[in-house]
Amino acid sequence: MKILVLGGDGYLGWPTALHLSAVGHDVAVLDNFARRGYDFEMGVESLVPIEPLQTRIRVWRELTGKSIDCYIGDLTDADFTYHVVREAQPDTIVHFAEQRAAPYSMVDRKHAVYTQVNNVVGTLNVLYAIAELDPEIHLVKLGTMGAYGTPNIDIEEGWLEIEHKGRKDRVLFPKRPGSYYHLSKVHDSHNIEFACRIWGIRATDLNQGVVYGQQTPETARDDRLATRYDYDAVFGTVLNRFVIQSVLGLPLTVYGNGSQVRGIIEIRDTMRCLELACENPADRGEFRVFNQMTQSLSITSMAETIARVSPEKVTIEHLSNPRVEEEGHHYNVVHSGLVDLGLEPHLLSDTLIESLFEITKRYAHRVRTEAMTPTIDWRKSISPIGL
Amino acid sequence: MKILVLGGDGYLGWPTALHLSAVGHDVAVLDNFARRGYDFEMGVESLVPIEPLQTRIRVWRELTGKSIDCYIGDLTDADFTYHVVREAQPDTIVHFAEQRAAPYSMVDRKHAVYTQVNNVVGTLNVLYAIAELDPEIHLVKLGTMGAYGTPNIDIEEGWLEIEHKGRKDRVLFPKRPGSYYHLSKVHDSHNIEFACRIWGIRATDLNQGVVYGQQTPETARDDRLATRYDYDAVFGTVLNRFVIQSVLGLPLTVYGNGSQVRGIIEIRDTMRCLELACENPADRGEFRVFNQMTQSLSITSMAETIARVSPEKVTIEHLSNPRVEEEGHHYNVVHSGLVDLGLEPHLLSDTLIESLFEITKRYAHRVRTEAMTPTIDWRKSISPIGL
Repeated sequence: MKILVLGGDGYLGWPTALHLSAVGHDVAVLDNFARRGYDFEMGVESLVPIEPLQTRIRVWRELTGKSIDCYIGDLTDADFTYHVVREAQPDTIVHFAEQRAAPYSMVDRKHAVYTQVNNVVGTLNVLYAIAELDPEIHLVKLGTMGAYGTPNIDIEEGWLEIEHKGRKDRVLFPKRPGSYYHLSKVHDSHNIEFACRIWGIRATDLNQGVVYGQQTPETARDDRLATRYDYDAVFGTVLNRFVIQSVLGLPLTVYGNGSQVRGIIEIRDTMRCLELACENPADRGEFRVFNQMTQSLSITSMAETIARVSPEKVTIEHLSNPRVEEEGHHYNVVHSGLVDLGLEPHLLSDTLIESLFEITKRYAHRVRTEAMTPTIDWRKSISPIGL
Repeated sequence: MKILVLGGDGYLGWPTALHLSAVGHDVAVLDNFARRGYDFEMGVESLVPIEPLQTRIRVWRELTGKSIDCYIGDLTDADFTYHVVREAQPDTIVHFAEQRAAPYSMVDRKHAVYTQVNNVVGTLNVLYAIAELDPEIHLVKLGTMGAYGTPNIDIEEGWLEIEHKGRKDRVLFPKRPGSYYHLSKVHDSHNIEFACRIWGIRATDLNQGVVYGQQTPETARDDRLATRYDYDAVFGTVLNRFVIQSVLGLPLTVYGNGSQVRGIIEIRDTMRCLELACENPADRGEFRVFNQMTQSLSITSMAETIARVSPEKVTIEHLSNPRVEEEGHHYNVVHSGLVDLGLEPHLLSDTLIESLFEITKRYAHRVRTEAMTPTIDWRKSISPIGL
């Protein structure tokens, strides 16, 4: 299968490209290096050093004999997007190429507008390219569990069978997202569902939980194949950040009382989910949604898990919550779609966290600790992006 | 009350500004003249000649002694938007300033992207200006009944009390809009609800039905105060177009079998709804939604009504439906919120339609009949914008 990975230089895009290549697909990647650019703006770097994309691709070819085509450019440039789809002729487009941090979108007006325009226009251009050039292409689009918010009812997989005043319908699950970033994913989902309806294209929307972990079998083959490991308060995901804090002997910083529950998924399961979604395409005209997570944990439980397995003595510090979000809420999520396709989840295990500890110790000298302090306040319309 | 009307040069923005001025409010208008620009692109004009905005304002002042401040610029230019909100110091912002035609958004990729970026970014800039400059400002935002689509359940006013697997919640009504334009309104609503939640601002979202009619007591005072009357297949609303077709002796063109039901509202009721929404603001932090329509009618019923009252012999022609939309669907809409505030609806009456016939006869020589033929096909990714 020919698979084009949009955002193929990112935290998950790069290991996904390697995984799909390893299992035998013909892979191309596209990226505009926006993610590397955000690092300059914030004055931080991935904890684990990463090579230029071109080096990564060369090393992979040297190790495996498999080549990965590479397109450098921006999806909001429609001419470029059409050019790539025409030239790569993919069967499947995996779309990671969006600004993906809630706090980044909440810095100020410019960051909110950038996030929504970048994400929505990039996806519109991909939809039009598919409709015009090859409506058989299967779009596998990354969304987020955060788009649902925390409703007081169980969260279904994208659609909801509803009964109201004696009548029934199947509707898009009503969402109440918690940032301008999460909103951009809701906008995308509505646009994609419409494109499936009018043009008969096929799409899979993956509402992904918070990803943790950094190594996959493919990236572990050579240091130069490593993917990013972000620990800062803007792009670092919570479990990854907790591990770094514990290794450095810093308190684990929990926002609010920590009762907020989130869906989580280990990085290797993300790779497997993408593989399953690609190899089992949606039907023509189908807007298929999976909740791409393997378990639900409260922030406090995550902190306690780290505290339990850490070789160091770990303390937990509660910060006043910079986000506007519910604490002590209901959270019960259906996530059986990918399991039905064959996913065998890796649940949060001591073993895995220990591999994260090793990576962190190796690169602990690269940490800028002040970058872990949250500075972006949801209640304000302008916040500094770091200390 | 100081009221700033965004899009105050448009079909509804202009008569709304006059109405709010007439009932005693201190009104300012803002416009970028995008709507006048679309006419150049399509090679059509409003059936009724319209004066430059500056002339309109001067005539209103001469007739009534009431002045209307005027700001010329674009909401997607944040500096301009902030400048106007700072200078006008409104209590209420009425926001009509969006690209408002479904077919225009479906021309091609550029028109879809333009519509979503223009509408979403303009509204984000207004939300940030309110949050930063004066969170007491009440935002009254125009949306559309079309955003709901045609669910098989009753349509409530923006929010839905839901019971699912034995649990209850109040959620945003799940929407399934029918064009990239309608989608832009869904994106706006999600963004506005979030801004109310995090910043405590007050907003009223008006899901407006299809508006018909062209005269209000204020615009009728002088020909130079007239508002637009669009009849083309892109911007012309269905009832207005039927009247023109009947006067010209052309068949009324019904898309598909005509069983599609739409919520409709007469132009004077729109003015009154805006007045009621402004004078009864939402609470701080409240995202209030009204369905701004007064009755539901099928397209066939609308055509039959015109046929019945027209002095000419009228025929009805069914065209294959250029839109992707359901026919023969359920449609039952709750629209009691504005009535509870005092709206006394004008239902579709022979009298009113007769006033439309008179206007049409007077300007019939200005019609370019080929502009009434629909050329924009929902199933295609590129369509011509006219014959």
